[in-house]
Amino acid sequence: MLTKRGHDVPVRRGQGRIVIEDSGVDVAETVSRVFGVAASIPAVRVANDFDTIIKTVVEVATSVLTPGQTFAIDCRRVGNQEFSSREVEVAAGNEILNRLGGVSVDLDEPDVTIHAEARDVAYVYHRLIPGPRGFPFGSQGRLVALFSGGIDSPVAAWLMMKRGAAVELLFMDQRPFVDDAYFTRAVAVATKLSAFVPQEEYHLTVAPMGVIMQLIAEHVTPRYICITCKRMMYRVACSLADRDGAAGIVTGECLGQVASQTLSNLKTIEETASTPVYRPLIGMEKLDSIALAKRIGTYELSSSAVSGCSLVPKKPATKSLPVHASAAEEGLDIDGLVIEAIDNLTYVRL
Amino acid sequence: MLTKRGHDVPVRRGQGRIVIEDSGVDVAETVSRVFGVAASIPAVRVANDFDTIIKTVVEVATSVLTPGQTFAIDCRRVGNQEFSSREVEVAAGNEILNRLGGVSVDLDEPDVTIHAEARDVAYVYHRLIPGPRGFPFGSQGRLVALFSGGIDSPVAAWLMMKRGAAVELLFMDQRPFVDDAYFTRAVAVATKLSAFVPQEEYHLTVAPMGVIMQLIAEHVTPRYICITCKRMMYRVACSLADRDGAAGIVTGECLGQVASQTLSNLKTIEETASTPVYRPLIGMEKLDSIALAKRIGTYELSSSAVSGCSLVPKKPATKSLPVHASAAEEGLDIDGLVIEAIDNLTYVRL
Repeated sequence: MLTKRGHDVPVRRGQGRIVIEDSGVDVAETVSRVFGVAASIPAVRVANDFDTIIKTVVEVATSVLTPGQTFAIDCRRVGNQEFSSREVEVAAGNEILNRLGGVSVDLDEPDVTIHAEARDVAYVYHRLIPGPRGFPFGSQGRLVALFSGGIDSPVAAWLMMKRGAAVELLFMDQRPFVDDAYFTRAVAVATKLSAFVPQEEYHLTVAPMGVIMQLIAEHVTPRYICITCKRMMYRVACSLADRDGAAGIVTGECLGQVASQTLSNLKTIEETASTPVYRPLIGMEKLDSIALAKRIGTYELSSSAVSGCSLVPKKPATKSLPVHASAAEEGLDIDGLVIEAIDNLTYVRL
Repeated sequence: MLTKRGHDVPVRRGQGRIVIEDSGVDVAETVSRVFGVAASIPAVRVANDFDTIIKTVVEVATSVLTPGQTFAIDCRRVGNQEFSSREVEVAAGNEILNRLGGVSVDLDEPDVTIHAEARDVAYVYHRLIPGPRGFPFGSQGRLVALFSGGIDSPVAAWLMMKRGAAVELLFMDQRPFVDDAYFTRAVAVATKLSAFVPQEEYHLTVAPMGVIMQLIAEHVTPRYICITCKRMMYRVACSLADRDGAAGIVTGECLGQVASQTLSNLKTIEETASTPVYRPLIGMEKLDSIALAKRIGTYELSSSAVSGCSLVPKKPATKSLPVHASAAEEGLDIDGLVIEAIDNLTYVRL
């Protein structure tokens, strides 16, 4: 990830920490986007020596505290040390009060906490950038995500990436039944998501849906058009998962969020899945996924206006049965269409 | 829900609101637990008349503001009114400043905001209790949840209830391979969850797993014991879902949270599911589900100590294949065991 972002810095595993040397804030922010990271801490490293630690804490305090602010010192020691944590806190606190005007101590709710960590060396810091937690990208295996570029599907893909899945983004290209903006938006949002991906090579996989949708328009009863379309998307995604060794597919579906995402329709659609379907947003409120999209950085792009699909009928089914869906598909060469879609995949380098 | 909780109060639908008359804070708190509710607002209802509204706003301000606090007045009008919102805000604000000592106006970040809503009648309030949002219990159909009473499964069940599913809680009774505390904890946690359920009759469904587990211990290779046990649980849950007209099952599984919840194991287990499996926690961090459990009120009970299952082998498989799982089950009469479990269900009234 660091190399991908152009940071050529030495990295080594410390005691319970990963230490990146010579790092500026820029590196710390890159690190805070790495899955598996609980927090990224830009710190000053000095010799583990009482006077040096005090001097460094005072220097950090001088650079960050402004008159009127309250502060606290928090010292932790790992292993045996010649001084106690309390001695560091008291000595550094007194020195700061002597040197800086207008600041005061508040141990309960300080404006600024300066941390000193005494290990083999000592680290002094005042800022902790929360990371996404989870597991390193790909450490849990592979998944294929149905990715439209709207608000939900990027959040769903991101959540599964965060839990350690190498997620392949699959965009079902519904042109000419949607406009070009739909495609452009997907590429832009996928590019945003790629900021979290450590792989050098990462792409958006694009499956042509136009021909399939044309046939659906010709053969399928209007009420079942959307369900059939979604069933075809599931089939193509499962087929891709199978080809690429992925252990399941990911969707942004959320129970009841739109009229079509009923338990009955989800069951009718899932019947076509040959691998597990992961729906990390299934129990969330729209407000939750919007908040996540904002945090990930996809919200603004995902909210950009695109035309809806022109094939959507006036009254799509909200209650459906697998047996009716199968009947509705009778005029379609399902297997042939899935093979053709997979044979005609294209890839957009992100 | 109100009747169930012993609140015998008139309820009517207002303009975009549901109005519950004669309600104290107790009722408002019950309402704030009802799925579908965005917020519950304990308000004073008065005539929609300028002087009366001002008088009421001042009364509410007098009862809640303490010296040193800042306040703001927020007035909204629905329909045509003889006065403007601004007139109410200015008049009430001035009156409060005249009457109360030591308070001041802060429109940006007030300590207290007093709201006046002028409709056919007027409502004055200063407090909004956030509701869970989502949809009314059962409005989206039925699901069966695998419910252990630990931290995750109650949160998973609650999230799907919140999205409108009538969730039936299914406890797989693993005694004698777990201790009695396991069962007691499940009943206690299910009772907590039942506070969100409006149905008069609600129960914990208990399926006997002891006989099945004894057979697993005798017939299944140690590495596959846990996977086989989970596959049996899925089968019983799917069979119950089928019997009770539920459109899927719910689990508290989260990718990588415990060593057994790998994509490979989830796929091996899901192979036995005859209905969709919903896993609302699949992309969450443990910290997220703990925060939700605390909010729901199940965390403390769910964290109580219970003995682990004594059948768990030293090295359960973390990578598995459906074909190996099927082979491991060869000595078991799967269909017969599932039918027997369903025939011997018991119910604990909550």
